[in-house]
Amino acid sequence: MNKKLLVVGTMAYDAIETPYQKVDRVLGGAATYIALSSSKFPLHCGLVSVIGEDFLDSDLDKLTQLGVDAQGVEKVKEGKTFFWSGRYHDDMNTRTTLDTQLNVLENFTPVVPDEFRDSSVVMVGNLHPIVQLDALSQMDLSHSFRILDTMNFWMEHFRSDLDQVIAQVDLISINDEEARLLTGEFSLTKAAKKIHAMGPRYVIIKKGEHGAQLYGDDKVFIAPAYPVDQVVDPTGAGDSFAGGFAGYLAHSGEINFDTLKQALVVGTVFASFTVEAFGVEAIEKVTHTSLQNRITAYRKLTHFNWDEKILAL
Amino acid sequence: MNKKLLVVGTMAYDAIETPYQKVDRVLGGAATYIALSSSKFPLHCGLVSVIGEDFLDSDLDKLTQLGVDAQGVEKVKEGKTFFWSGRYHDDMNTRTTLDTQLNVLENFTPVVPDEFRDSSVVMVGNLHPIVQLDALSQMDLSHSFRILDTMNFWMEHFRSDLDQVIAQVDLISINDEEARLLTGEFSLTKAAKKIHAMGPRYVIIKKGEHGAQLYGDDKVFIAPAYPVDQVVDPTGAGDSFAGGFAGYLAHSGEINFDTLKQALVVGTVFASFTVEAFGVEAIEKVTHTSLQNRITAYRKLTHFNWDEKILAL
Repeated sequence: MNKKLLVVGTMAYDAIETPYQKVDRVLGGAATYIALSSSKFPLHCGLVSVIGEDFLDSDLDKLTQLGVDAQGVEKVKEGKTFFWSGRYHDDMNTRTTLDTQLNVLENFTPVVPDEFRDSSVVMVGNLHPIVQLDALSQMDLSHSFRILDTMNFWMEHFRSDLDQVIAQVDLISINDEEARLLTGEFSLTKAAKKIHAMGPRYVIIKKGEHGAQLYGDDKVFIAPAYPVDQVVDPTGAGDSFAGGFAGYLAHSGEINFDTLKQALVVGTVFASFTVEAFGVEAIEKVTHTSLQNRITAYRKLTHFNWDEKILAL
Repeated sequence: MNKKLLVVGTMAYDAIETPYQKVDRVLGGAATYIALSSSKFPLHCGLVSVIGEDFLDSDLDKLTQLGVDAQGVEKVKEGKTFFWSGRYHDDMNTRTTLDTQLNVLENFTPVVPDEFRDSSVVMVGNLHPIVQLDALSQMDLSHSFRILDTMNFWMEHFRSDLDQVIAQVDLISINDEEARLLTGEFSLTKAAKKIHAMGPRYVIIKKGEHGAQLYGDDKVFIAPAYPVDQVVDPTGAGDSFAGGFAGYLAHSGEINFDTLKQALVVGTVFASFTVEAFGVEAIEKVTHTSLQNRITAYRKLTHFNWDEKILAL
């Protein structure tokens, strides 16, 4: 496996309101969070996205200075960057979208740079299924482990397009409500089985503050969320999860249930960092040491000693 | 530590409705589930409870045949057994109580048999705080690890009595909503800290299908629920959890954060058995082998390999 990761997804400006704070316009977008997280690993990360003329050079620099290859980021003349605005409720788990301005995203045609067509991992972020199909069609699929993110909107309105994408990927990462919507099954174990039958060998079901589950190879792995004292801003938690997950996987050089479990833990830890500050602030500050320490702490949180003698009744 | 466990709590008849099934009158009650679960371990379990004349000998036999000592179960002449009726909603996580008839529970005065006053573990189930205090006052507290269950009703209406009980116990086991209600803290880690300050060295916060958390000795342990394909009836899941937990603890002969973690896993596994059938049906059928197998499976579900070299970036 080469250590190349291709990320396809949105770059955006976000306005975010929480019960405690409000910001008008901060750097956001799924691909931004994914690339920032995965760039913590020594790999070659290529970004395919679209921005408007209003996108600040200093914001693009944040990514390129970390080694992210931005040749696949199209800057549309006189275009405006995708804008999202939302308000989090008191429980910090649910939110209301106040405004979505697609802007340059409306006519986005992804172009995968030649050198990333054989990336060992491709992470296709939440986008119109037709755009996702377009991106995947440019990959040398025999080389790439394909990871898909999507959301309820596409399930409800573009189901047949979405089904085509799902059939082509190795792993799909969605939340519990989306898994239920996609399959009509309330039980997540049953939902995962149905999704396997649609194509993906591996299924990740995210449950927000309750953690995430990985299904595949007739195995299950369940990872609780890392508990943080204070959630400051949940924006980007899922995307940082995806970025840490994909980054670790591309870095590890091997894809099997064991490395996928480790990747899920890394993603969980990235998500926990993200929610501790506004926007991309916390994820930018993650270091090798802080990552290592939190993974060690996470292991202590979830592991217990057991041997069969204990129950020699 | 002697291997004596004292259980104080309700015995009842339940009428249960789920989206799939309905039963009119089945054996229930917290103490019933707790005793049935803990009786899977080789220990001396004493039960303190109250029943009416309508309580079937065959139901009491279910417990005594498993070695449960029922001398502390008072049978009230012409009295009627506590009755509860509830309906589970489609998500199987929420329920509506349709009827509660306290009956003999209204004038329950617990009497702890002499031989159980020095039990190494005492599990005080959800009851009026005054009754809980009465039971605790009969224990030789220097010998006993005291575990408390309670619920939102007592927090809302008998807070000062409840605070007295909480101050006396070593461990409290409540759900996430109750922890928030008790402390006014939304964050569970913050809530746990406040509860420690109220007395209990250890705090368990149950999150239903999302698992449970253990706090104490400046450590945290997080255990996801064991995923079952089909939840048939959630009644008694929390009480079987408590019974498996307390039973394992009394059996293990040692109380520290490591054995408490193991006890939490055992409790989690007991809860998963309980929800797979109606009422006490599944918990009655648990064998040493099925327990051992599910704990082994649970370990695989939650453990991952990790060493620092993996992130030698």
